[in-house]
Amino acid sequence: MGAFKSGCVVLLLSVLACSASQLEAASRRRILVSPEVHSDGRVTFRLNAPNAKRVDVNVQFVQGLRLMTRSKMGVWSVTLGPAEPEIYEYSFIVDGLQIVDPSNSWLKVWLRNSKNLVEVSGKEPMFFQQQQVGHGTVHIHKYRSKSLGVTRGLYVYTPPGYETSENVRYPVLYLLHGMGDTEDAWTVVGRANVIVDNLLAKNKARPLVIVMPYGHTPSVPPDMRSIGNYGAFERDLIEDVIPFVQERYRVSSNQKDRAIAGLSMGGGQSLTIGLGNLELFGWVGAFSSAVPRTGKLDNLLAELKETDDKLNLLWIGCGRKDFLFEANQKLIERLKSDNIKHIAHITDGGHEWRLWRRYLNELVPLLFKADK
Amino acid sequence: MGAFKSGCVVLLLSVLACSASQLEAASRRRILVSPEVHSDGRVTFRLNAPNAKRVDVNVQFVQGLRLMTRSKMGVWSVTLGPAEPEIYEYSFIVDGLQIVDPSNSWLKVWLRNSKNLVEVSGKEPMFFQQQQVGHGTVHIHKYRSKSLGVTRGLYVYTPPGYETSENVRYPVLYLLHGMGDTEDAWTVVGRANVIVDNLLAKNKARPLVIVMPYGHTPSVPPDMRSIGNYGAFERDLIEDVIPFVQERYRVSSNQKDRAIAGLSMGGGQSLTIGLGNLELFGWVGAFSSAVPRTGKLDNLLAELKETDDKLNLLWIGCGRKDFLFEANQKLIERLKSDNIKHIAHITDGGHEWRLWRRYLNELVPLLFKADK
Repeated sequence: MGAFKSGCVVLLLSVLACSASQLEAASRRRILVSPEVHSDGRVTFRLNAPNAKRVDVNVQFVQGLRLMTRSKMGVWSVTLGPAEPEIYEYSFIVDGLQIVDPSNSWLKVWLRNSKNLVEVSGKEPMFFQQQQVGHGTVHIHKYRSKSLGVTRGLYVYTPPGYETSENVRYPVLYLLHGMGDTEDAWTVVGRANVIVDNLLAKNKARPLVIVMPYGHTPSVPPDMRSIGNYGAFERDLIEDVIPFVQERYRVSSNQKDRAIAGLSMGGGQSLTIGLGNLELFGWVGAFSSAVPRTGKLDNLLAELKETDDKLNLLWIGCGRKDFLFEANQKLIERLKSDNIKHIAHITDGGHEWRLWRRYLNELVPLLFKADK
Repeated sequence: MGAFKSGCVVLLLSVLACSASQLEAASRRRILVSPEVHSDGRVTFRLNAPNAKRVDVNVQFVQGLRLMTRSKMGVWSVTLGPAEPEIYEYSFIVDGLQIVDPSNSWLKVWLRNSKNLVEVSGKEPMFFQQQQVGHGTVHIHKYRSKSLGVTRGLYVYTPPGYETSENVRYPVLYLLHGMGDTEDAWTVVGRANVIVDNLLAKNKARPLVIVMPYGHTPSVPPDMRSIGNYGAFERDLIEDVIPFVQERYRVSSNQKDRAIAGLSMGGGQSLTIGLGNLELFGWVGAFSSAVPRTGKLDNLLAELKETDDKLNLLWIGCGRKDFLFEANQKLIERLKSDNIKHIAHITDGGHEWRLWRRYLNELVPLLFKADK
């Protein structure tokens, strides 16, 4: 698909015989390329909107909106940057209406609302960028959740060599998404599969299976009440997802080979479910997490102190500009004062995928080590 | 996700303690539901666009554009239908600009340009609708194409029971997408996995593996020249994809257990590659296909006549309103006059996924039968 991502051309295709040429004719049109990523890290955005009075682009690597310029033909464009190598979100604002770029098929699809993504590369590939290494496989399942009474989606990553190995049992990370996401977010936006492919190629992590379930639970009327109310998801995970995975994948069923981590809402779920089920999970990670409410947290930490040797790792990451930073800071102070072993990873940045990709890249090499 | 798909509500969530409530607060906003599918098959479309002068919806189940009505708050809406149970494409046109619905995360993503999808259900589930049956798995691979010198995507469907069966080798269908599609089209839009799950649940087909490769090949400058020029894809398929699949999946390597089929461009590829490699493919299907040019076709049919007993099935489907209908009609006449065994499946309809889902549902039960 790479060839479709560069250049801006007008196509008048040569005519072939018979119906192949008819199909070509149907596609004979001006192909507008947007975004066009230049080798120096600048990015050109384009939108064909002859009737618009004003078009802006809102892209993460510049602050605020940037006005685009209209050509005589009605194509709006602007070139911004250079930007650091990264995956950035963007959208267009056409006369006040936010839209996605019709020329770009890479979308961060949320439960409600989508944004486009654009990737800027540098001279060396970044840790989240596909390299010429062995690639694992992402498996899309539909499973019947008996506990919830619905059929749900589930993504599973297996590392390179999984299909051709035999009699090897792998440790497993349950990796949870955020409030606006679905079960594909950690692969489509988070690049978890690519990050782990790259870590494994450098021998920086143990080969592992990653299970990415859908974190919302049915509720009527449609709302966000699954935030802070994780009981139904906990049952689905423990009674349905884990048995489903253990039946179909060569994963270890030992507590010391099972981790749970997540971002934002999924971080809150990881703390609640992980610390609440220490007989199941030996490693817990919470990225920019929605820290459980005080009473709930008291119970979890009390239990953790009683059984501290069961937990191999409690890993907390948060950016200083995150709106959840204060809550995470308080959690870390609490862990210190309670003398609970943990790793606190405070970084720059806000509530954003840029950090979560980095946190995953930091966490995975620490998991499933024989020595604590 | 079902709960997020119905109803139109204003949310003011109750406040919880600590950071979970902060996360809720961040999501406290009017949630606009679009599309809303009513139980009688009518569909309400909504778009928040206070500054727009005119908003239309373009949906497959009505002819032409339909004007939407603006509320005082600037939300445009219209209720259309009732529509027959089906998956329909739609988009909004805001003051002449075609956009996707920001409230709907189900998209048909094309190489260039995306449309939304909306599914209308009837009293009984349709053949392409998820039912309470065993579900197969869709596997997303990245593989290195040595013949093309690039890393490419590949989707593979395995039937229910594949993971827990042993020593069973499955027949395999190579299923190709159209010109505007990528390797996920047959699952995301075509529902190939759901269709086959349902066929298998009714014992109407032999359990099979389906391989869905990416059909375009790199070309400079970015264009659609892969139409009608299938040599590079043929090498990728035969030298890279098939060995990759045979190494990782329990598939039969017999010609009589290997089929190839596709839609539009992928139909042209299936005819060209399938009939051109009868030692590899025992079954060929072409849906609304871009029939190969006359000279190429002459060669293919000449070879086929010489080795007619090698081919178990040649299946041609096309809709009478398809812009490729005449070419397909000519192909069928040619097959008749050349006395080449085939099944011609002429139906109503145009160049559309509605037909391709049905064609797949017709074709799969015919594949891999012991008796010709």
